[in-house]
Amino acid sequence: MFRAIISAEILQDAIKAASSVVDEARFEITPEGLSTRAVDPANAAMISLELSKDAFVLFEGTEGEIGIDLSRFTDILGMAGKSDEIELKLDPDTHKLDISMGGFSYTLALLDPSTLRNAPVVPALDLPAEITISENVFKRMIKAAEMVSDHMSVGVQNGIFVMEAVGDSDHVRLDLTGSDLIAITPADVKSLYSLDYLSDISKGVGGAGEITIHLGRDLPVVIQFEFAVGECTVKYVLAPRIESD
Amino acid sequence: MFRAIISAEILQDAIKAASSVVDEARFEITPEGLSTRAVDPANAAMISLELSKDAFVLFEGTEGEIGIDLSRFTDILGMAGKSDEIELKLDPDTHKLDISMGGFSYTLALLDPSTLRNAPVVPALDLPAEITISENVFKRMIKAAEMVSDHMSVGVQNGIFVMEAVGDSDHVRLDLTGSDLIAITPADVKSLYSLDYLSDISKGVGGAGEITIHLGRDLPVVIQFEFAVGECTVKYVLAPRIESD
Amino acid sequence: MFRAIISAEILQDAIKAASSVVDEARFEITPEGLSTRAVDPANAAMISLELSKDAFVLFEGTEGEIGIDLSRFTDILGMAGKSDEIELKLDPDTHKLDISMGGFSYTLALLDPSTLRNAPVVPALDLPAEITISENVFKRMIKAAEMVSDHMSVGVQNGIFVMEAVGDSDHVRLDLTGSDLIAITPADVKSLYSLDYLSDISKGVGGAGEITIHLGRDLPVVIQFEFAVGECTVKYVLAPRIESD
Repeated sequence: MFRAIISAEILQDAIKAASSVVDEARFEITPEGLSTRAVDPANAAMISLELSKDAFVLFEGTEGEIGIDLSRFTDILGMAGKSDEIELKLDPDTHKLDISMGGFSYTLALLDPSTLRNAPVVPALDLPAEITISENVFKRMIKAAEMVSDHMSVGVQNGIFVMEAVGDSDHVRLDLTGSDLIAITPADVKSLYSLDYLSDISKGVGGAGEITIHLGRDLPVVIQFEFAVGECTVKYVLAPRIESD
Repeated sequence: MFRAIISAEILQDAIKAASSVVDEARFEITPEGLSTRAVDPANAAMISLELSKDAFVLFEGTEGEIGIDLSRFTDILGMAGKSDEIELKLDPDTHKLDISMGGFSYTLALLDPSTLRNAPVVPALDLPAEITISENVFKRMIKAAEMVSDHMSVGVQNGIFVMEAVGDSDHVRLDLTGSDLIAITPADVKSLYSLDYLSDISKGVGGAGEITIHLGRDLPVVIQFEFAVGECTVKYVLAPRIESD
Repeated sequence: MFRAIISAEILQDAIKAASSVVDEARFEITPEGLSTRAVDPANAAMISLELSKDAFVLFEGTEGEIGIDLSRFTDILGMAGKSDEIELKLDPDTHKLDISMGGFSYTLALLDPSTLRNAPVVPALDLPAEITISENVFKRMIKAAEMVSDHMSVGVQNGIFVMEAVGDSDHVRLDLTGSDLIAITPADVKSLYSLDYLSDISKGVGGAGEITIHLGRDLPVVIQFEFAVGECTVKYVLAPRIESD
């Protein structure tokens, strides 16, 4: 059983976050809320999304699993204004998802969860450095790096957060210290990541205000943000690229 | 003889309405105003547009007919700001249309009306149901249906205006009653229409505020709106699709 | 040696002006400022750009020459907000250009100036007519002409500035007198120009407010504007097309 009412803006932001990494996802329903963990086809990027029942205006759910085509779902949610409310209801007979908003009732066919990849385990990582920056700086950093290369390194050196992207001829670097950072737990770390994935992830980040980055030495990066007054948590894990030189 | 001055916004809206169904149209000039009736190449959709002389700042016309390439005309009108005035003058010698606005004088070659299809007769239809909704609801309804299917049914059941679109897997439905409708003359009717045409028509609808829909049972729909303080009337007639099942 | 600080808006406008005619340009550095003269591959259009040291917040330069890929430079400058400051510094060792703004440091590889075409000589032209119009009228004039033809004539007749474009079937004309012109030095002149080039040039014109056009009889046109309180001067020279009739 699943029936829920939620603000369009929160649901749109949550689905946007997931669809930046995967096209289809299986969502787990529990009495505590809705969540998904999914990994991209190349096994390089993972998303873990938790939407607490407190993010909803109304939430009634018992254990269950549904598979969603995220691009169809995004199209439908796009019909709602940000301040509208959206009602979701799982039809137990047809096993379709009824979506109502502003007089419209959509019936969305669900995907068979057993045909979707198993939810990955979020790896236990020892990432000593933690940096919090504004969403705006995060997006500009990735855009800046994309202009010169297809991968970028991020790290911490002497308490300074450093991004660097090296192209065939040009390169770009960003050094952030003190007041430019919202918070930093320094540690001497550095890893290289693919900008294809980071660019997708930066499209999924919205409404957060701030982003926390967990870094290690040649380890996956964890990029984390919250919205809906902390009731929605999004965590991306992205595998490093091996530096070749 | 034809010479007229009109606000750019009214003329732009009128030509946009016509060009959503046909690329070329023959306009009839009388002392009472300008009008056109045109049918799309597949004979499925028809537009009837009447621009009364009172919609103009100045209107001088005797009986005549001109053929216009609507996309060229749209491009030229697009050069005017909404609050500009546009002067139209038929040159009796060259049989071209002189268009003046903001210092610019365009000379637009006209099409030979005899090469254009005959103006269709607006069919006499007995459409018992009449629904008036806001332009905004009309456009959202069509956009919503397009997301799941290529055709949509509209009808009235027990005084409720119902739109429904059924795709291969998903479907969408809109029920409008009471306060969501501006006006309704109920009758038990329902027909199916192609969304290709409805989508084009919804692009032609502008500045109207409200739209009136005349419906029958498996009959053409008449979609009607007015602007320019009622001095411009646009009427679309769209043939039904036969439901196959 | 070259080091300079300049407002992003001025540098963006200057580079946009140059890149509307050429993709790569060699810039001359002197203690007095930065300048470039470049001609398009077909030798039809030329740009001369002078950015005085007074357009900069800080300017330190000795004689030198640098070659710049304008589209890469435009991309990088696009990362800055209009009100940001941009610092440029020529690295004497690597001969790359360091570009800093808002915490980001870009290193842009320069082109070898010797591989770029020689700076053309600005031709000495005796152009008796001079017309000053607003940037807005200039852009609309070119857009209007493009709708009917691929070339347009401009001239002065009896103190009236006349633009005319004649297509296969349609034509457009603009007559500007008295108050529509900011200034005019009349002379009986007329020349024909390619709209491909004028369209590119009109994209390069920005922030000027007004444009001065110098015209002769079947001679190149000089299109000139200034910005940054007169400290940046842009001059386009465009060769005429021969009228064939």
